[in-house]
Amino acid sequence: MIAVCGSAAENARLNALAEEVGRRIALAGVTLVCGGRGGVMTAACRGAMQAGGLTVGILPGDEPRAANPFVQVAIATGAGHARNVMIVQSAAAVIAIGGEYGTLSEIAIARKCGRRVIGLESWELGNEADGIPRILPAHTPAEAVALALQHT
Amino acid sequence: MIAVCGSAAENARLNALAEEVGRRIALAGVTLVCGGRGGVMTAACRGAMQAGGLTVGILPGDEPRAANPFVQVAIATGAGHARNVMIVQSAAAVIAIGGEYGTLSEIAIARKCGRRVIGLESWELGNEADGIPRILPAHTPAEAVALALQHT
Amino acid sequence: MIAVCGSAAENARLNALAEEVGRRIALAGVTLVCGGRGGVMTAACRGAMQAGGLTVGILPGDEPRAANPFVQVAIATGAGHARNVMIVQSAAAVIAIGGEYGTLSEIAIARKCGRRVIGLESWELGNEADGIPRILPAHTPAEAVALALQHT
Amino acid sequence: MIAVCGSAAENARLNALAEEVGRRIALAGVTLVCGGRGGVMTAACRGAMQAGGLTVGILPGDEPRAANPFVQVAIATGAGHARNVMIVQSAAAVIAIGGEYGTLSEIAIARKCGRRVIGLESWELGNEADGIPRILPAHTPAEAVALALQHT
Repeated sequence: MIAVCGSAAENARLNALAEEVGRRIALAGVTLVCGGRGGVMTAACRGAMQAGGLTVGILPGDEPRAANPFVQVAIATGAGHARNVMIVQSAAAVIAIGGEYGTLSEIAIARKCGRRVIGLESWELGNEADGIPRILPAHTPAEAVALALQHT
Repeated sequence: MIAVCGSAAENARLNALAEEVGRRIALAGVTLVCGGRGGVMTAACRGAMQAGGLTVGILPGDEPRAANPFVQVAIATGAGHARNVMIVQSAAAVIAIGGEYGTLSEIAIARKCGRRVIGLESWELGNEADGIPRILPAHTPAEAVALALQHT
Repeated sequence: MIAVCGSAAENARLNALAEEVGRRIALAGVTLVCGGRGGVMTAACRGAMQAGGLTVGILPGDEPRAANPFVQVAIATGAGHARNVMIVQSAAAVIAIGGEYGTLSEIAIARKCGRRVIGLESWELGNEADGIPRILPAHTPAEAVALALQHT
Repeated sequence: MIAVCGSAAENARLNALAEEVGRRIALAGVTLVCGGRGGVMTAACRGAMQAGGLTVGILPGDEPRAANPFVQVAIATGAGHARNVMIVQSAAAVIAIGGEYGTLSEIAIARKCGRRVIGLESWELGNEADGIPRILPAHTPAEAVALALQHT
């Protein structure tokens, strides 16, 4: 699976990127996992589902019905913010799109767990000189998905 | 989704029941969710997958590769025993097969969360007279799946 | 630490037992851990705190202020029902007082994790003949705490 | 409670800062909460305990005995990396000392949850102009604790 992380806030520009990322993950035959809510998560699931892919939403609450309508498998963790850890652990690679501190927590945990992280208009972190591995920057959805697929 | 709960220990008799439960869940067009490990969980996933169904494993550890080979969507919660809570919350109904204290914890949480619970050679609990709702006993895999589907 | 489990619903009889259990845990110089909410949990914490003991509440929500006023250390897990697992894992022994399915889930997980469980007007489970260890029944708060202290 | 976050790796310079932070938290009469393991966590607990303070360790594993010897209340979450979320949610303010991606995940979640974050030789993040609140930089343990206490 490849994870897509980003804000639940609505941002047309980031949502368009997310939808295209979702579509490309589906076309690659890979399952998309995300937090199952709105904003970037809804857009990515919509893109994947419309391209015939499988979508998994790992929800913060205890009710599967809270998932966005493009989530096909809804996991009701009831774990709150801790569900972010479960999203990235379940994926071979993580694509972070925009995002504020919630997304940053997913990036940080992904790196802590040794998962590959690709950023699309997201946080720029890491410094090979200090031994802190970098977030790989991508310039387009196509590049982000290609980088995510490289080691999965 | 319908959850199947039971011991990871190998028990030929319970595994045969679980495989038939999994097969019938798949034939009903419903996704099967379980703990993703061995014993009853492997058998149920095998039955579902061989009948063309979708299988989800919610794992205790942080590594998706620890799932049994019949899990198609592996969620690496890293939550240990707490992943039992996530399995039952994600399902509309829970079928408990045999089982010892691990399965009992899933039954209890499912009842606490208001999920329907069907037992197949499992714990017999509850007492309507005391206001504690009963676990519905089933005598065959077919009856267990029919009861689980009734309200989903 | 010794855990005290029981319903958040108010029941004068069970609360009186819980308060006396809490008092005796504190007098033994042991820290009390519980779910940090109402009913049996408030009563046990009140008993412990009034006897000069330390009380820990492991809360389901993400806000420490939701603890009852007799909790001195409040852990905001945000984990929902999964916090029950954390309560029993953190304790050397568990005293279950009355209780419905929420308490049963704590008993089951405690037994699964190999923690000693003492029941006071609680579920009677287990069957040594079948290899399922029994919940130890206690008839008074004093007996419950004495049994809990035996192996800690 | 005030949380102290930082790497489990041993770093004499960061450990000295952590010990002094722990000491000052205890002297302020506040309980210290941390991840309960080594490195910065052991040093902070040692500083707090030697000054007569109360120390809480929220552990990733399911065994309280895994806590460092200066933890007085050990919570065995079994939640793995997700325990980081529980540490920051339980605290009114978070002091991050040095740290790599694990610490960054705690900083990010703390900001996401609206907790005050003070950094001591740690990540510098945030940009008021973009509406992303800053991590407050401190230059000494005394300044870090003073900033943490300001709003608790």
